[in-house]
Amino acid sequence: MIIEKALIVDPIEGEFTGDIEFDKKIINVKKYDCTPKLLLMPGFVDTHTHGYMGIDCMTATDKDFNIWGNKVLSNGVTYLFPTTVSHSFEVLNNVTQNFSNATHSSLMGLHFEGPFLNKKKAGAQNKAYIQSFNDALPQLKNVKILSFAPELPNSKDLLEKLRKNNIVPSIGHSNANYKIFKEFFDLDVKRITHFPNALSTLHHREVGIVGGVFLHKPYVEIIADFVHSSPEFLKLVYQTLGAKKIILITDSISATGLGDGIYTLGNLLVKVKDNIARLEDGTLAGSTLKFIDGLKNFKKATNCSLKELSWVSSFNALKNLKIDTGRIKIGYDAKFVLLNQDLNIIDTVV
Amino acid sequence: MIIEKALIVDPIEGEFTGDIEFDKKIINVKKYDCTPKLLLMPGFVDTHTHGYMGIDCMTATDKDFNIWGNKVLSNGVTYLFPTTVSHSFEVLNNVTQNFSNATHSSLMGLHFEGPFLNKKKAGAQNKAYIQSFNDALPQLKNVKILSFAPELPNSKDLLEKLRKNNIVPSIGHSNANYKIFKEFFDLDVKRITHFPNALSTLHHREVGIVGGVFLHKPYVEIIADFVHSSPEFLKLVYQTLGAKKIILITDSISATGLGDGIYTLGNLLVKVKDNIARLEDGTLAGSTLKFIDGLKNFKKATNCSLKELSWVSSFNALKNLKIDTGRIKIGYDAKFVLLNQDLNIIDTVV
Repeated sequence: MIIEKALIVDPIEGEFTGDIEFDKKIINVKKYDCTPKLLLMPGFVDTHTHGYMGIDCMTATDKDFNIWGNKVLSNGVTYLFPTTVSHSFEVLNNVTQNFSNATHSSLMGLHFEGPFLNKKKAGAQNKAYIQSFNDALPQLKNVKILSFAPELPNSKDLLEKLRKNNIVPSIGHSNANYKIFKEFFDLDVKRITHFPNALSTLHHREVGIVGGVFLHKPYVEIIADFVHSSPEFLKLVYQTLGAKKIILITDSISATGLGDGIYTLGNLLVKVKDNIARLEDGTLAGSTLKFIDGLKNFKKATNCSLKELSWVSSFNALKNLKIDTGRIKIGYDAKFVLLNQDLNIIDTVV
Repeated sequence: MIIEKALIVDPIEGEFTGDIEFDKKIINVKKYDCTPKLLLMPGFVDTHTHGYMGIDCMTATDKDFNIWGNKVLSNGVTYLFPTTVSHSFEVLNNVTQNFSNATHSSLMGLHFEGPFLNKKKAGAQNKAYIQSFNDALPQLKNVKILSFAPELPNSKDLLEKLRKNNIVPSIGHSNANYKIFKEFFDLDVKRITHFPNALSTLHHREVGIVGGVFLHKPYVEIIADFVHSSPEFLKLVYQTLGAKKIILITDSISATGLGDGIYTLGNLLVKVKDNIARLEDGTLAGSTLKFIDGLKNFKKATNCSLKELSWVSSFNALKNLKIDTGRIKIGYDAKFVLLNQDLNIIDTVV
């Protein structure tokens, strides 16, 4: 297959015009001056998503995971990391089992959001299942990311176990003060879950995780739905951390794509109104964001370049997980998104 | 007079070694390589200070102002801007009158902190005197800076009057949201009073003045006493805004230099314990900081260069007020500070 006269965006080489030839891999990249007909970017990576169009990570069968992987292609996502919420080890083990039986090429691994979180920053996580680490872990097969609160007891033991299993630790649902944040940052914990939501805030006498992030610049997951944070906050993150540290995520729940109504997240009731998902007490409960819309929002808030957009939507997430893909270059997987100049998706190639 | 073998710090030319010759003005600057015996920096500027060693701006006589100017020389301050708190126009007019009769060469002008402030962010300002601008103003002779809350009614009219009187407007004791901050920033209001104290905080859905400051980088007054904000916060401000935008102030009250005890600020009771000044309800009520100690703290928190230290302690404040002085250069006023390598003051020359 050949795609001709595209504005190609590679995260390393930047923007250029030309053709690409591919089958499963990219066979040839031909650079030349032309007026491009469409935009070609590496496939998007969603490392934090709880569900989509009626499918919920916690109850999904292997077939559901395959359907999920297929459906989000229309949003440009070619690398998918279904994400759990805090639950019993038994239920989490079921998720791992079902995920491991699924086969869709977009399914890259699981993100365990919890259960070792801080109840004070529970957000829409079910407090009944939030716990401290106590030597036992659920099955970790295919788990690639685990969000945890470092201020809990035994967090360093947990960290050691994650390292042994090649799982990327991410600070989330945490009330850690700056000192604890810095201690774990120095232990190479350099990823933050849905920054700055459910994290200790910036105060001028205790700068918390938000201040720590602005000072030391780890990778941060960002939900660019303009609900979890304002356009100005996104701009501030972009300006302070730079585009190389931002990982766009959706944090989408099963209600995404289905319109307003009553849904569940784990076993908590979620009401979606005007596309905003909340628990009964008003707490935000994930999003109904489609990846491509988060991308458009981020571009709108920051006016970043297309190269930077390829970082925040794809390259940074892969780099953080040490996965060497997501390039538009000979020999790499042919996973990419074709868009028009308004960033509407024309096609997703996998 | 000649000072030989000094490490000279000029805010524009940076660090160099050599001699300077001066009487009232700097007559000659001789640059050459040598092992310096002491450090020579431009005289410090304190644009926000309510009192010192028993003298209170609100009740000071002309003689008191002269004594004040003289006493702070030992802290390196050669440019002094005594600062009022919110009070009746009658009392403010008395302050202006007494200040105008004072003659000490360090007395550069007054800073009116209020009374057009937001009661919700009163801090240690007396709410009984806080008011909205309503066309009337106290006498403005020698007033160089006025702190106000832009979200109050008629703030644009106030701003116009300040401009006509060549008074620098500074946003202070304000609960303005980002939109209002930005509106006034675009009207060239680019100074913030004792950032980030008594200002609207950073929230991810409403970034407030703190977020606006991080995004747009106006001048900010900073009290580097490690009480009004932590070392990490100072580092964050330094990293985000850069040393060219920071104006060190003391915000010192009359208790400064007198030890713990009971004092007043305006006509509110202030208790000083462990050098921290608070109202009875625990609200911070200015500081007991000496300028040189703020300088040392800032250096400790940020590890900035000596050139940058000359900006935050002197040059930025003068530039913001459009006063062309504070250089170590032929023809400029001979106002400078001699320090040892531990930043202890050896002498202040005026």
